[in-house]
Amino acid sequence: MARLLYDLAGAHPDFRFSPYCWRSKLALAHKGLDVETVPWRFMDKDRIAFSGQGRVPVLVDGDEVVSDSWRIALYLESTYPDAPALFGGPQAQALARFINGWADGVQLPGLTRLVLADIPATLHEGDLPYFHSSREQRLGMSLAAACADRDTRVQEFRASLIPVRMALKNQPFLCGDAPAYADYIVFGGFQWARCVSDFPVLADDDAVGLWLERMLETAGPAARRMPALRA
Amino acid sequence: MARLLYDLAGAHPDFRFSPYCWRSKLALAHKGLDVETVPWRFMDKDRIAFSGQGRVPVLVDGDEVVSDSWRIALYLESTYPDAPALFGGPQAQALARFINGWADGVQLPGLTRLVLADIPATLHEGDLPYFHSSREQRLGMSLAAACADRDTRVQEFRASLIPVRMALKNQPFLCGDAPAYADYIVFGGFQWARCVSDFPVLADDDAVGLWLERMLETAGPAARRMPALRA
Repeated sequence: MARLLYDLAGAHPDFRFSPYCWRSKLALAHKGLDVETVPWRFMDKDRIAFSGQGRVPVLVDGDEVVSDSWRIALYLESTYPDAPALFGGPQAQALARFINGWADGVQLPGLTRLVLADIPATLHEGDLPYFHSSREQRLGMSLAAACADRDTRVQEFRASLIPVRMALKNQPFLCGDAPAYADYIVFGGFQWARCVSDFPVLADDDAVGLWLERMLETAGPAARRMPALRA
Repeated sequence: MARLLYDLAGAHPDFRFSPYCWRSKLALAHKGLDVETVPWRFMDKDRIAFSGQGRVPVLVDGDEVVSDSWRIALYLESTYPDAPALFGGPQAQALARFINGWADGVQLPGLTRLVLADIPATLHEGDLPYFHSSREQRLGMSLAAACADRDTRVQEFRASLIPVRMALKNQPFLCGDAPAYADYIVFGGFQWARCVSDFPVLADDDAVGLWLERMLETAGPAARRMPALRA
């Protein structure tokens, strides 16, 4: 039975932009595990009801069903211990949890205020009502309002990247000499932003951009070309 | 020859509050290494000139002289590989560098705006001119101005702790089941704040406070009692 990953898709079924799904796709690739990604849209809640919740990524691996990108990473690491490690041991896994918290609590909210208003143009029309209402409820404002001051707000976002920048002063990847799961976590956010928007979230001279370039090399040509499939 | 750590002292020579020095003291204790801490004040630049720079901590270990808390941690880990590990392997060390960047770039600047104005009262009078001028130059404002709005600014600081809080949802320490160097990094900042100020940097119900309590147990009674030596 093929291994499946339910992966958020835009108007074009091959346009895949979810930051959380990118984490899982890179984790699967790191482990050398084949996977068939299944395009999924927000209106398709019923199609992942078997997972007991309504969000992607959802991994179906034989009889196992795992949702949530962090739990998928833990599942892959424990189920495939002989494949290349996503975490270099228990302490690295614990510290990656901090970086996961930073990405979910700082990076993604920061990027949201820069690129969210560009997302509807990339979505299937059937997803638009849900996307607008869910995001506007969460933010307490329209998507346009959330991004209205992005030209000034971007400075704050760039400043918030200081831990990434400081880590990369001394090493090419967050995980050291080679990328591993913590890199995929942070990559997911930047890949999401570049898929859905041309807004320059990084300054041209930011060392984080050099790391992102290395990550795009790691992620492969399909990941790099993804913005071209934007509707 | 005794192992020495030059350690920032306040008016009371046993009042030791530097966040960076706390990182190194806990790292030495973790390794089970005896050390004599040498009280050092800002006006004593000449006394550490042998280290080639002017800041503490400075570790003197036999013929070796190491300054900078991060470099001290790396030195201890590589010099004493058979003692308990500060980092659980190369990836954990790389990820701890991110947390070091977060602490230096987010946590300490945030705490500075809450407690800085309380520090002069704890210092030796000879340190006051240097402390005022160096900090005011760095911040571009008086110490009083830096902390003037701390009652409102504290909310922003507490919000900035989200990666710590999210990591601690699933594990008792940032490093997992037991504390290690990344915990000491973040502990250093909170210990600095509680040493120099009674200002409540954490809300009463913040899970970070439960972790801080565990860290004070780890650090031992002298660390816990330190605020009592505040001048």
